[in-house]
Amino acid sequence: MTRIYLDHNATTLLRPEARAAMIGAMDVCGNPSSVHGEGRAAKALVENARAQVASAVGADGADIVFTSGSTEGASLACSGRGLQGSVVEHDAVRAWIDEVLPVSTDGVVSVKDPKNSVLQFANSETGILQKLPQGLAVTDATQAFGKLPIAFNWMDATMALISAHKLGGPKGVGAVVLKRGTELKTQIKGGGQEMGRRSGTENVIGIAGFGAAAEAASRDLENGVWERVEGLRNLLEQALAAGTKDTIFVGNSARRLPNTSCFATPGWKGETQVMQMDLAGFAISAGSACSSGKVRASTVLTAMGYDETTAQGAIRLSLGPETCESDVLRFADTWLAKEKIFRARVA
Amino acid sequence: MTRIYLDHNATTLLRPEARAAMIGAMDVCGNPSSVHGEGRAAKALVENARAQVASAVGADGADIVFTSGSTEGASLACSGRGLQGSVVEHDAVRAWIDEVLPVSTDGVVSVKDPKNSVLQFANSETGILQKLPQGLAVTDATQAFGKLPIAFNWMDATMALISAHKLGGPKGVGAVVLKRGTELKTQIKGGGQEMGRRSGTENVIGIAGFGAAAEAASRDLENGVWERVEGLRNLLEQALAAGTKDTIFVGNSARRLPNTSCFATPGWKGETQVMQMDLAGFAISAGSACSSGKVRASTVLTAMGYDETTAQGAIRLSLGPETCESDVLRFADTWLAKEKIFRARVA
Repeated sequence: MTRIYLDHNATTLLRPEARAAMIGAMDVCGNPSSVHGEGRAAKALVENARAQVASAVGADGADIVFTSGSTEGASLACSGRGLQGSVVEHDAVRAWIDEVLPVSTDGVVSVKDPKNSVLQFANSETGILQKLPQGLAVTDATQAFGKLPIAFNWMDATMALISAHKLGGPKGVGAVVLKRGTELKTQIKGGGQEMGRRSGTENVIGIAGFGAAAEAASRDLENGVWERVEGLRNLLEQALAAGTKDTIFVGNSARRLPNTSCFATPGWKGETQVMQMDLAGFAISAGSACSSGKVRASTVLTAMGYDETTAQGAIRLSLGPETCESDVLRFADTWLAKEKIFRARVA
Repeated sequence: MTRIYLDHNATTLLRPEARAAMIGAMDVCGNPSSVHGEGRAAKALVENARAQVASAVGADGADIVFTSGSTEGASLACSGRGLQGSVVEHDAVRAWIDEVLPVSTDGVVSVKDPKNSVLQFANSETGILQKLPQGLAVTDATQAFGKLPIAFNWMDATMALISAHKLGGPKGVGAVVLKRGTELKTQIKGGGQEMGRRSGTENVIGIAGFGAAAEAASRDLENGVWERVEGLRNLLEQALAAGTKDTIFVGNSARRLPNTSCFATPGWKGETQVMQMDLAGFAISAGSACSSGKVRASTVLTAMGYDETTAQGAIRLSLGPETCESDVLRFADTWLAKEKIFRARVA
C-alpha cells in the first residue's frame, strides 16, 4: 500500500517547479563570482531566485542573504547578540539566546524588549502562532513561510529566518531576510559573497530550487490550498476526538498553522506511536525532526504546563498541499485501532 | 561557435554521475533526522555519500563532516584557533589565521609549527603544490582533491578541507575531513546533526551529488585523465611561449596541479585579458573567482616576489577532464593574436 507522508513540518516533497529549476541550473556551469559569460549566467540564476524569494516573503527592497538553511540563519542572525527568547524556539535559535521569556499555558510567549528579542512566527511542534510585537529583532519564520501569507515589510521585524525545504524547495538552503542597512555579524568569511555578509560559493542549484519553490508556494497560498488543508486537519482531529477520551489536542483553540495537529495520549509514548504508525505506512513525528531520536518529553509542551507523561505521549501530524481526505481518514482509522489496543493493555 | 570553458579551478561542470545522483535524491522525501522510513531513506543517501567521499579522499575510518563548502569548512576548522598560515592561502582561510609564514620566490611556504599551522595542498591561482609537513593542523585540499591522488590517512594532517564543486559536484557542498577523536569547535549549533559538529538539516540532494562526483573523480584519476590534461596544459604553455617574449609562466618549474597555468604579461591587465577572451568565447580568470571583480594585483604573485605590474598582468587557465587539444590550441591562437595587438599598442 502507498505510504502516507504526514510530516511536512520536518521536511516537504520537492515541488515540480523546484525540481525543474534545479535540473535547469545543472546545465549552467560557472561560478557566480566569475566575470565571464558562464559566471554571469550563474549569477543571474542566483539573482532571479533572490527576487522570487523576496517577492514571496513580501520583502521587496529588503535584503535576502542566502544561507545553508535556517540553522545557519539563526547563527548568523542571533549569535553573540544576547537576544532574549523562550524555550519554545527551535534548538537552532535556542543555542544563541537567553531563555528568559515566559510561555503561557496556551503557548503564547510574552516579549518584554522586542528590539532585543527573537520570537518564532509559528511553532513547529504545535503550529501555534505568535503575535509579533513591533520592532522585533528576529523572527523565525521557518515554519510559517509558505503556509501563511507573510509580508516581511509589514511585520516590522529587523530580520526573519526562512528555509527552502519547508515549502517544497531543497534541504540545505535558506535565507536571512533583513531590513536594508541592518548590520550583520558575518560568521562565514572569505570571498565576500552575499555583499560580504556570507562568504562561500553560492549553492546555485539549491538556490534556484528555493526561488521556484517560493514562487509556487505563494501561488498555492493565493489559490486557497491551505484552507483546504486546514479543513482536512480539522476533520482529522474530529475523527480522532470522537474515538478517544484521554487524548489532548494541543493548541486547538489557539491560532495555529493550518496543517499542524499535535495531540498527546498520556502513557502512550510518542516514539512508540511513531514506530507503530511507521510500520503501518504513515510518516509522522514526535517533536521536531532534529531532536527525534532523543527520548525526552517535548520542551514545548512542558513549557505550556503539560506534565511529563502527557508531553511524552505527544505526536505531531503535519499535512502538505498534496494531502487528501482519504490520507487523514486512513490515518485516523489506523491510529484509533492502535490506541484501542494501548488502552486495553493499560486497563 | 561553442564557448570554451577553461576556468575549472573556479568551478566545474556537473558530472553526469552527480547529476543522476541528485535527480535520484529528489524523489526521496524525508528528513535524515526523522526516524520513519522516509527519514531513514534520506539518511541512507547521506551516509552512502559519506562513504563515497571518505573512500575518494583516502579517509576510511576518519570523520567526514559535511558543510556548505570549503569556506564554511575553513571557518569550522580554523576560526578561533590562532593558526599560523601564509598570504597564499585562500581568503576563506586567511580570514582566520596569523599570516606569518614566509613564501619563497617559487611559491613554497615554510611551516615552523605544523600542529598550529594551516597549509594549502595546491594553490588555486598558480597550481603550485606544497609539501605538507608531518602533524599539520589543517590542510586546504580544495583545489587538489579530485585532481591528484590524495590519501588523508597517509598525509598526517589533523583536518583537511574539501569541496564538491571543484571536482564535478554541485556548488554549496563540502566537508571537513578529520582524524577520529579530533575536537571541533562547533559554529552552527542546533539540532545536533553531523554528530553535533555541524547542525542543520542536511543538503541531501547536494550531498548525494558530492558522493557520486567524488567517486567518479577517483575513477578519472585511476584512468589517467589528468596525465592527458597535463599534456594539454604543457602543450598550451609551449604554444604561448613560442609566440611571446615578455610573458612569464608562473611556477612552471615547480610541482603543480596538472590542469593549471598561470601566466603574466606585464602591462596588460589580467581583467582586460579576461574580458577580451570572454568576448572571443573563452572563460578564464584573473586570480581566484571569489576575489574577481576586485581590481588588484594577485596577493599570491606579489608574495612570490613579482612586482605589481607583473602581478596585475596575470591570468589563470584551468583545464578540466573534458578539455581537448583543439580547445587549448584555439585559445593559444586567439590569445596570441590579442597579445600582438597589445604589444603593438604599447610599443
